[in-house]
Amino acid sequence: MQTTKQNNSVKSLPGRERVVIENVKPEIDAGRFPIKRVVGEKVLVEADVFVDGHDALACVLQYRHENSSEWAELPLEFLVNDRWRAEFTVSELGVYQYRIQGWVDHFATWRRDLRKRVEAQQDIMTDLLIGAELIERAAERADGPDAESLRDLVHNLRRRRDFSATTHLAMVDDLAPLIARYSERRFATTYERALEVLVDPVKARFSAWYEMFPRSCSPVPGQHGTFRDCEARLPRLSEMGFDVLYFPPVHPIGQTFRKGKNNALVAKPDDVGSPWAIGSEEGGHKSIHPKLGTLEDFRRLVGKAKEHGIDIALDIAFQCSPDHPYVKEHPEWFRKRPDGTIQYAENPPKKYQDIYPFDFESENWPSLWEELTSVVLFWAEQGVRIFRIDNPHTKPFRFWEYLLRRVRQACPDAIFLSEAFTRPKVRYRLTKLGFTQAYTYFAWRNTKWELTTYLTELAQTEIREHFRPNLWPNTPDILTEHLQTGERPIFGSRFVLAATLGANYGIYGPAYELFENRAREPRSEEYLNSEKYEIRDWEVDRPDSLRDLITRVNKIRRENTALQSDWSLRFHSTDNDQILCYSKHTEDFSNLIVTVVNLDSRHTQSGWVELPIHEMGLDPEKPYQMHDLLTGAHYMWHGSRNYVELNPHFLPAHILRVRRKIRAEQDFDYYM
Amino acid sequence: MQTTKQNNSVKSLPGRERVVIENVKPEIDAGRFPIKRVVGEKVLVEADVFVDGHDALACVLQYRHENSSEWAELPLEFLVNDRWRAEFTVSELGVYQYRIQGWVDHFATWRRDLRKRVEAQQDIMTDLLIGAELIERAAERADGPDAESLRDLVHNLRRRRDFSATTHLAMVDDLAPLIARYSERRFATTYERALEVLVDPVKARFSAWYEMFPRSCSPVPGQHGTFRDCEARLPRLSEMGFDVLYFPPVHPIGQTFRKGKNNALVAKPDDVGSPWAIGSEEGGHKSIHPKLGTLEDFRRLVGKAKEHGIDIALDIAFQCSPDHPYVKEHPEWFRKRPDGTIQYAENPPKKYQDIYPFDFESENWPSLWEELTSVVLFWAEQGVRIFRIDNPHTKPFRFWEYLLRRVRQACPDAIFLSEAFTRPKVRYRLTKLGFTQAYTYFAWRNTKWELTTYLTELAQTEIREHFRPNLWPNTPDILTEHLQTGERPIFGSRFVLAATLGANYGIYGPAYELFENRAREPRSEEYLNSEKYEIRDWEVDRPDSLRDLITRVNKIRRENTALQSDWSLRFHSTDNDQILCYSKHTEDFSNLIVTVVNLDSRHTQSGWVELPIHEMGLDPEKPYQMHDLLTGAHYMWHGSRNYVELNPHFLPAHILRVRRKIRAEQDFDYYM
Repeated sequence: MQTTKQNNSVKSLPGRERVVIENVKPEIDAGRFPIKRVVGEKVLVEADVFVDGHDALACVLQYRHENSSEWAELPLEFLVNDRWRAEFTVSELGVYQYRIQGWVDHFATWRRDLRKRVEAQQDIMTDLLIGAELIERAAERADGPDAESLRDLVHNLRRRRDFSATTHLAMVDDLAPLIARYSERRFATTYERALEVLVDPVKARFSAWYEMFPRSCSPVPGQHGTFRDCEARLPRLSEMGFDVLYFPPVHPIGQTFRKGKNNALVAKPDDVGSPWAIGSEEGGHKSIHPKLGTLEDFRRLVGKAKEHGIDIALDIAFQCSPDHPYVKEHPEWFRKRPDGTIQYAENPPKKYQDIYPFDFESENWPSLWEELTSVVLFWAEQGVRIFRIDNPHTKPFRFWEYLLRRVRQACPDAIFLSEAFTRPKVRYRLTKLGFTQAYTYFAWRNTKWELTTYLTELAQTEIREHFRPNLWPNTPDILTEHLQTGERPIFGSRFVLAATLGANYGIYGPAYELFENRAREPRSEEYLNSEKYEIRDWEVDRPDSLRDLITRVNKIRRENTALQSDWSLRFHSTDNDQILCYSKHTEDFSNLIVTVVNLDSRHTQSGWVELPIHEMGLDPEKPYQMHDLLTGAHYMWHGSRNYVELNPHFLPAHILRVRRKIRAEQDFDYYM
Repeated sequence: MQTTKQNNSVKSLPGRERVVIENVKPEIDAGRFPIKRVVGEKVLVEADVFVDGHDALACVLQYRHENSSEWAELPLEFLVNDRWRAEFTVSELGVYQYRIQGWVDHFATWRRDLRKRVEAQQDIMTDLLIGAELIERAAERADGPDAESLRDLVHNLRRRRDFSATTHLAMVDDLAPLIARYSERRFATTYERALEVLVDPVKARFSAWYEMFPRSCSPVPGQHGTFRDCEARLPRLSEMGFDVLYFPPVHPIGQTFRKGKNNALVAKPDDVGSPWAIGSEEGGHKSIHPKLGTLEDFRRLVGKAKEHGIDIALDIAFQCSPDHPYVKEHPEWFRKRPDGTIQYAENPPKKYQDIYPFDFESENWPSLWEELTSVVLFWAEQGVRIFRIDNPHTKPFRFWEYLLRRVRQACPDAIFLSEAFTRPKVRYRLTKLGFTQAYTYFAWRNTKWELTTYLTELAQTEIREHFRPNLWPNTPDILTEHLQTGERPIFGSRFVLAATLGANYGIYGPAYELFENRAREPRSEEYLNSEKYEIRDWEVDRPDSLRDLITRVNKIRRENTALQSDWSLRFHSTDNDQILCYSKHTEDFSNLIVTVVNLDSRHTQSGWVELPIHEMGLDPEKPYQMHDLLTGAHYMWHGSRNYVELNPHFLPAHILRVRRKIRAEQDFDYYM
């Protein structure tokens, strides 16, 4: 037999904490990361809570905002199989904490058992004395009238033996809620981790983004646009229903190795260069490209946009052109090659000599982190609250965790969109670390099976606790093969999909409105004459543009709460693989939207869709009205199976609001 | 804008640890509890490991026994989707730790990229210098001949520009494994938790238990049996194939409120009482009932049993009769009622006045914990290594965690069987805390659906990392309705189920061998004339006993490794709900046992069973032999569907060993 190696001191253990709390949900990676909510949302918490033996237990959900030292408390409700549940609402931006506390409730045990003894007609005199002791201790924890009431009960239980057992029971039952308030928590178990909720503004959950190059906004063809020109676009974008206007980088652009039109290796003298080659003698990440205007112009634009309900979102691309002031001022932030030159970006054998990446393994990484953080804080000071982060997956995870926390401390209403088109686990790690929203693989999910499995993963699994998808059918980098081969109809159906599957969605606007589908070369997802390298004049007022469809869909989104979040998304079966059907609803189903999309952009498709009308609270015996919010048409549907037919050249989809009959009067039925 | 509340010092962060390690499996409750293995088993570890950007990474699994300060190390193998895997074997009793470490491997990145540059016929002179720097740093971490070799390579990369690119590449490739050994781990990420493996003796995974009341072992009918009488039973039990002989408590039995035969409230003078009413003037938990013999006799029995390959298992029932010495010596360990009496056990309105439970909320709980721990240690000192813990769910969880750890520190080969017939989460918490094995709901799982779902849950989900089932068809407390209504055949089939579904199983022996099925009253699971309250004479040599079946099944278990663990258990479909079919196999399928049981104890049942012969490595085109290990019969089966027929009055089951043809010679086929 071995000798005892580790003589744990018994006394130091919390030996009388008998309650166990485990399997708390939601909890991400053992509490390492916060879950996410927006202001006004609920947090539904569940846990397994139990105790040895047969004693009753009490347990509560505790929560508080980070600015509060006091925990608010709610009783947990017992479900089944030792599972308990409660929910609280987050009402302020910032971080909330929640945890669970449980304890053996000797009074509840005693009361439960007393009832059984009375029912079995046993002598309860000693039991009354035991109860009196318990209540006396509760009275010691109370004061004022509460203490008084409890002491009266103690007195009655001890002295008034002439009362019947039933009378005693009634007295106890009356005061039980009061006694519960002063329950003995000396040996309470508190869940070992305080879990966190990151509370964002509502726009984190529901937003419509429009991406636009400000330099292409001049009313004079070929001329470099300005922030003033952008101001002129605001009424139109607001009418179309967008609430985020996102600009590629607005900083001075490098000259060294500048790329020409269509990514030519050598630029011509009048080529404007890529906005992502940031930095020149005119400044770096905190400067404005002189041709766009001044910082003052920018602030003015931000203010004007706000007046139209639009937030300006900036692109945060942490990389430098060789001409960036950092290169001279902080050579230690870049990697030096043995030949004395600075390491440019590479994806061997490809070389991107116009871009210097930062070296995050630099000995001077703390000053690099501080400077980059100060870049975001600088734009926050100019009124910007939404940031689209370029390629976050190529910078260290810990860096983002630090930066996001620092910026949020200053601006708890900041929103960060992660542009990480990379492997799933990397993307999820970034949103766990604090990115508010993220681009998705939506652009490449085209078939019914692809859309159903992918969106179900995002909306229905635990991923949704941290990953808020933002669905983009295109970006300046992404013109998918699917869009290239379709015409106007495919742009219509992909738009409806993005805007109804995703409460957050965005388009690279002018190109999308005009269903621009010309690629630079076969198999490329790059646009021909890409705006990344030149100024484009977009005829956005062309009569065949998608403007009207976009405007209508955005209006439908604003008017229907069901479309303003993703968690209720459910796909429904159809008997045609080209017909996709799904629904979203509010918690009480008062707003229930069924969308049916024809995935075939060339041919009319029809089929039967099947709705779970029981879950939807629809009467299988009665007809219900389907109000097509795109066309205004009304259809009467019956039961779970109904027929649909969509001609892509006329209409890409039905967006149907379900209306139930509330009364019939003479010849009219009323639906709400 | 708010002011910064929490100005984290950047410099204190591990800012250059770029690798992320998450989703490590196995890991129970964020590492709060150990997983379990027996000596010689493997631990297969998986994790998501990744890094920002495009750099290559290296990662290793590290593990060590608690007695070692050095970590052993194995490379992790890349699977897919950022998932990595490795496995190690635990060879010693006690606790192992394992964790994962990962780092950016700049040399691997450089080498990968060099290959691409050479393939693209780029100039690599600067790259060779970069590589030389990396290898030079590796050389600084090496010494002896390794350092020499590395410095040679550096020299060649720097000076010998007359070599071709391909030659350079070959030189690098040659030395790559050596360079990997001296990889730069300065900024390595180590997984935040060292996870634990509790390593038990092999009997923790594979054991056959026989429960017997020693007082019923006298050869003279009606006389109180002794440990010497038990010795005489050992050869028989050993021949039958049991390796654990478990006794109900062997301590002095209380007189106060002693229960009579059939649990009568008043005992007659010659009633022997319940062994679970522990303690009298003759002693308590560390004493032997005088009629059973002396402590010396007990130690002798333990030794004799070991000679037969049998471990004596003792019952640890932490409760007292009113006559227990503790009641006088430590009144503070019991709860006092207001009338001055001690609180007896209750389940209101039922009262158990012959039992005093301990009060674990006593102010003196540390001395109570110490004393109860010393009880187990006392019996461990007498040579006992297996303990069946009575009702652990009625004592605090933290107490068990403490006791189990203390006893294991002294005896890492100790085995604890949890007798917690209570709610699932309570039972799983106990095994997480360290119980080696646990009773299950098997006794009440009778139909095909019940057995399939329950055993699949135990054998295939993460529960198996801590919960080792021990299947008992009966106990002295449990005579199920199923057994009551069946005759000898049901005892046969339930025995085969227990012993082939469970690598650990047990029977309350004499009653089971003789298919005792008389209940005390209808709807009760108590035996008529229960041995709990009286001495029984069992005619275990009756010719119709199940002894022969039991002996044969235990022999099959010993000879077939597949039956010695549970993780490979798979159920197979049959077209008859009364025919249950399942298999177990060794990792390489060299031992593959298919069991087919007739669940109907009255009628012959037949049907087609369907085996996944592809997974089993059987050729669908060739016949294979099924060797029935119960009868010795050989059947030729073909393909996946084969016919079976079982008459319960002749044979409850087939236990089939699959034999593949290895060669054919003249008229004979040989199978192995």
